[in-house]
Amino acid sequence: MSLVLSVNAGSSSLKIALFRAFPENKDEPVKLLLTCSISNISTPPAEFSYKVQNGSTKQEELNDIHDHESGFSHFLDCLDAEEGVNREDITHVCHRVVHGGDYSDPVLINDEAYTHIERLSDLAPLHNGAALAVIKICLSKSKFHHAKSITFFDTAFHRSIPPHISSYAIDQKDAKSRGLKKYGFHGLSYSFILRSVADFLQKPASSLNLIVLHLGSGASACCIRQGQSLDTSMGLTPLHGLPGATRSGAIDPSLIFHYTNKAGRMSHDEGSAVHLHVTQAEHILNTEAGWKALAGTTDFGVITQKREEDPEGAGLAFDLFVDRVLNYVGSYHLKLGAQVDALVFSGGIGEHSEELRAVLAERIACLGYASISAERNAAVQGAEDIVLDVGVPEATGPRLLVCRTNEEVCSFIFLSTR
Amino acid sequence: MSLVLSVNAGSSSLKIALFRAFPENKDEPVKLLLTCSISNISTPPAEFSYKVQNGSTKQEELNDIHDHESGFSHFLDCLDAEEGVNREDITHVCHRVVHGGDYSDPVLINDEAYTHIERLSDLAPLHNGAALAVIKICLSKSKFHHAKSITFFDTAFHRSIPPHISSYAIDQKDAKSRGLKKYGFHGLSYSFILRSVADFLQKPASSLNLIVLHLGSGASACCIRQGQSLDTSMGLTPLHGLPGATRSGAIDPSLIFHYTNKAGRMSHDEGSAVHLHVTQAEHILNTEAGWKALAGTTDFGVITQKREEDPEGAGLAFDLFVDRVLNYVGSYHLKLGAQVDALVFSGGIGEHSEELRAVLAERIACLGYASISAERNAAVQGAEDIVLDVGVPEATGPRLLVCRTNEEVCSFIFLSTR
Repeated sequence: MSLVLSVNAGSSSLKIALFRAFPENKDEPVKLLLTCSISNISTPPAEFSYKVQNGSTKQEELNDIHDHESGFSHFLDCLDAEEGVNREDITHVCHRVVHGGDYSDPVLINDEAYTHIERLSDLAPLHNGAALAVIKICLSKSKFHHAKSITFFDTAFHRSIPPHISSYAIDQKDAKSRGLKKYGFHGLSYSFILRSVADFLQKPASSLNLIVLHLGSGASACCIRQGQSLDTSMGLTPLHGLPGATRSGAIDPSLIFHYTNKAGRMSHDEGSAVHLHVTQAEHILNTEAGWKALAGTTDFGVITQKREEDPEGAGLAFDLFVDRVLNYVGSYHLKLGAQVDALVFSGGIGEHSEELRAVLAERIACLGYASISAERNAAVQGAEDIVLDVGVPEATGPRLLVCRTNEEVCSFIFLSTR
Repeated sequence: MSLVLSVNAGSSSLKIALFRAFPENKDEPVKLLLTCSISNISTPPAEFSYKVQNGSTKQEELNDIHDHESGFSHFLDCLDAEEGVNREDITHVCHRVVHGGDYSDPVLINDEAYTHIERLSDLAPLHNGAALAVIKICLSKSKFHHAKSITFFDTAFHRSIPPHISSYAIDQKDAKSRGLKKYGFHGLSYSFILRSVADFLQKPASSLNLIVLHLGSGASACCIRQGQSLDTSMGLTPLHGLPGATRSGAIDPSLIFHYTNKAGRMSHDEGSAVHLHVTQAEHILNTEAGWKALAGTTDFGVITQKREEDPEGAGLAFDLFVDRVLNYVGSYHLKLGAQVDALVFSGGIGEHSEELRAVLAERIACLGYASISAERNAAVQGAEDIVLDVGVPEATGPRLLVCRTNEEVCSFIFLSTR
């Protein structure tokens, strides 16, 4: 018996899950013990939520959490107070790291590996910083000397993308020496979805052609051919591709220069708990764009609700998002030679927005996809299955599925099956 | 009877055509009298070529052409020496201008309009400069006081793109005040192609759904629904979308910041005949990227030929281009609800690369498009028709067409039919 901690550090959030595993007995299922979620870390008071499975729930606003370190320490205090849980039994800490460069496997962290990951984070300073801060805590805390810290990279799933798809049309000597190419992200999620859909369809993962939409506050699409990533919408960093809650997604690269004097000027990101240097324009496009800029809210539910009363704000955001998603679905459908097993909706919006699924399904029907069942589509909310079919019964053509993805669980499951 | 001069000024080239028109007699066809092409203007010796229809051809390398003004003056000297042509009879000079901002119609140029166009050229300093230089000559030359200078904008055809497709997911107040949105380019060409295909298919242009590929050293794709541009691959500037001879096309916007210290530093482009200030990174992505960077040549014919012997250079460039073109074809096919009249190949590469057409057609066949006829595809080279069908005879599904486009003729035809 051992305990495994899974940590998912965002720029202003921390999501933690504790599992009990039985490495010596493969038939014993892993068990989720408790979860913890901390948000608004960079804009106190932080919201702290702590939930024991089939047990108590704690929810509070805390002013003394002001960075990832203080947040993680507060979690450890709660853990130490937990009956029947001994911190010494934690054998592994799994860290989700957004940008893993060319790493294709999880990495056992020591000081040397840490330095290496820190260096490749130059590629995406906005995205790796928080995870590095938490890894550093785990490495330095003497009480964790039993636990191995392992990093799981969101880029790893996309290492199968061939060079003619992952390369940009720029000097390749320069590109190779500086690592400038499409990496793609949300890989832990895609990996989980692929496995879950294979189980659901009762087909080997390696036989599946899927178009997967991970639509959350960060949104991306993935084209999976025979169980491997063939293309994905994000690029060198998570900025490219689909727009999100605060991200612009794809723009004309020249647009950067219209943030004129600001572009190129280095700024210190004071709002975040980690020390980053990014240009002002990159910061704006990652954190001040997207639906927030179009509709004044990062909540896609609100956007969906208000799209008729506010056509130039919420309406524009909704229609623009549909347009951009369709760009990738059309492209990936063709890339898969029109041989697609299923279109999969996932991520917060993919799982919760009945309206968005209905609108997208209607537009995609012309390619021969299953028609959406209004009844099944409405029943997703409240269901507990990991994968659901929302197409009409006995439909022909590619299936329409919804998959509940969970990035904390993903890394753990990935670990448990290796 | 009047003479019309059509001028197409690129950053280092000048293409001129002289037509005879009979405005008072609509049934009298317009007649091409002579053409002139000047290239390598910014890297002397310039190549000067002058061809009278059914007459003499002059081809020479000239060291005294060092900018657009000296090139245009040399052309005028040749014109004055031409028997039967009187410069005083030139009633209109049609200038192709790449970026027209929100202009939807051609503009009769006076000093005020010139200033206005010069100002909107801030949006694309690399692209409008040369045309402005030639317009300035025409305005200042006293010998042209009879002629009206009219500008035709490559952006005008795309004014029909709806806001949810043309907007970027950025602050819209900022976007509107600074004109930051997708404009699209190659509009004179798309306009000509739409008209020519409508004639060929004997259907009204307003009924046509087309996917048009303008593939030249600058490459773009256009989705035409019921005779109007619904989407196109280029954006705020011609940099976005498909890669070209020296352009990167779409990249992760964050990639810009990896040209590190150089990004944001203003440089003076000494290689060009016009006075421009652009950032180093924008310059690299427009003029040092694309096939030139991938394969060491801007000649797509050479790339096609060498793709097997040089898989990491020419091979990568060819496959990457196919991949990016398919992205747009798949996307536009879905955007048109799978109701497409024809896929149209045009531009230098679209018209000349039998291999590229064959490869693309094979990949697109899965969507139900006509299969390509090897015989018809081979016969394009050497044919003189404006539009050719390269699908197998009696194919079902969307047609595969080739259209010879000509941007100098486009603006003139546009003028002659208004």
